[in-house]
Amino acid sequence: MNDWYIAVDIGGTQLRAARFPADGIEPVVQHSAPTKADDGSTSLQRLLDLLAGIWPQNGTVKKVGVAVAGPVNPQTGVVYRSPNIPGWECLPLAGHIHDRFHVPVELGNDANLAALGEWKYGAGIGHHDLLYLTISTGIGGGVILDDRLLVGGRGIAAEVGHITVLPDGPLCGCGQRGHLEAVASGTAIARYVTEHLARGRESSLGQPVEPISARTVAAAAAAGDALAQEAFDQAALFLGRAIADFLHLYDPTIIVLGGGVVKSGDLLLKPLRKALEASVMSPQYLEGLELTTAQLGEQVGLIGALVLARA
Amino acid sequence: MNDWYIAVDIGGTQLRAARFPADGIEPVVQHSAPTKADDGSTSLQRLLDLLAGIWPQNGTVKKVGVAVAGPVNPQTGVVYRSPNIPGWECLPLAGHIHDRFHVPVELGNDANLAALGEWKYGAGIGHHDLLYLTISTGIGGGVILDDRLLVGGRGIAAEVGHITVLPDGPLCGCGQRGHLEAVASGTAIARYVTEHLARGRESSLGQPVEPISARTVAAAAAAGDALAQEAFDQAALFLGRAIADFLHLYDPTIIVLGGGVVKSGDLLLKPLRKALEASVMSPQYLEGLELTTAQLGEQVGLIGALVLARA
Repeated sequence: MNDWYIAVDIGGTQLRAARFPADGIEPVVQHSAPTKADDGSTSLQRLLDLLAGIWPQNGTVKKVGVAVAGPVNPQTGVVYRSPNIPGWECLPLAGHIHDRFHVPVELGNDANLAALGEWKYGAGIGHHDLLYLTISTGIGGGVILDDRLLVGGRGIAAEVGHITVLPDGPLCGCGQRGHLEAVASGTAIARYVTEHLARGRESSLGQPVEPISARTVAAAAAAGDALAQEAFDQAALFLGRAIADFLHLYDPTIIVLGGGVVKSGDLLLKPLRKALEASVMSPQYLEGLELTTAQLGEQVGLIGALVLARA
Repeated sequence: MNDWYIAVDIGGTQLRAARFPADGIEPVVQHSAPTKADDGSTSLQRLLDLLAGIWPQNGTVKKVGVAVAGPVNPQTGVVYRSPNIPGWECLPLAGHIHDRFHVPVELGNDANLAALGEWKYGAGIGHHDLLYLTISTGIGGGVILDDRLLVGGRGIAAEVGHITVLPDGPLCGCGQRGHLEAVASGTAIARYVTEHLARGRESSLGQPVEPISARTVAAAAAAGDALAQEAFDQAALFLGRAIADFLHLYDPTIIVLGGGVVKSGDLLLKPLRKALEASVMSPQYLEGLELTTAQLGEQVGLIGALVLARA
């Protein structure tokens, strides 16, 4: 009889579920379904059906690990809310899955679990203290301290995008002002360009053929556009300073950067490193410090949920 | 035969050492000596003599715990540096004590160990996730996560006074600009007043009878001085925002405030609470949150070192 572990990743566009053996990160089966659908079914129903589709005929499912985009309480298995699924408010998701399949279920925030995945199977192998940051439309992350995932007293620690880095600065997605996410996410990079164009700045992005995004800004910067480069420099400065803050607070030995904005490479990373090195309170924080990019790609949420299930 | 635990607190003015039984926080003997002396002896010699003076005639010393003002490496027992003792640079202090007394020795940063003391025997009893902040001439702190002291990969985590809260703001003791310590410590409160007086602001502190300190500013504020109140409001605003950051990053269920500036009471705490409540990204962070003052007083370093020794 085989032992199985099931991992679930609940993203903004896709629900994904995969079944894994006791070792390794190759699923024996993986299915997906849209997070939102017009067929009258709920996201929860589609999720439970997805799980039924990969449930084993033989053997035992030891545990289901679930990565959720949004704050969750790992102790109670409740999703506080999901920015992508309007109905999910204080939803006892672990309970719903358990009621249907009668196996242990554990939840985690997707960025926290991505940290766990990169630590166990990705860029962070061998480290005991790791900071993972994902920089895309928002900024999220997760922290491993002394070989354990930081979850906090209510399960909502490591919201690394939500520290005030510019008092009274731009509005953040969370409703506060001047958070790291509000000045250094992909959204913030695009907005920086849009606002400066509105004030009459010259730029090749002045007559955009497609909506301005961090990706189009990166392309313009690569082609030498000064405003586009400035937008990335600005984000990198705040990121470098914030990572210095995180070094002072968490003292990790590796920083793993994931998310779409990091694909812009040295355009972001070079000024980020410079700002980081200039911002630490003591060179000890840089001793043996690795600053690198994520390795697990699209699978990172599922693999993080797998690590949670196997723990 | 008795088992003994010895705790040492190496402060800026005093070296203190005490011997404790296996339980409780009442020392059977406690001695102190000046950190600096003109008699030709070194701080290390005085410390070793202090330990000899309280060493038991009978029984076994299970461990010596040492609280050091300054960054230390708990893994190696090395003091990186001590701001109060010029010669202490990369000093293998645990090794020196072990060479003389042949018992296990463990070091910790004094603010980290104060967190440990307040968690085990003070304001934080019963909590699993605690943030301790000490606000005096500088700002330090310590963090308990899931019943364990946060030390970090190099032993220098939880430097909570050193996050950038005001980009390009006032110079910090560490050499960086705009850190929390630079805008919200006792030193920063006194400097705020001094600078505004220099710019011609009216205040009862205009002709001070003693040097302006956070204590004299607090007294003036209590007597209704507007500039003095403003100085505390400003510090409290930055503290409240920073504590919101720490909630997002560590998610503790209790915040314990220590240090001389906190003795000003509601003058600081009222606007601090207001800023904190206005700055969290979600009310969940305030659920069941306790914000309180430290209980262990002057003994907190010794008791923290005791908890470390007994762990």
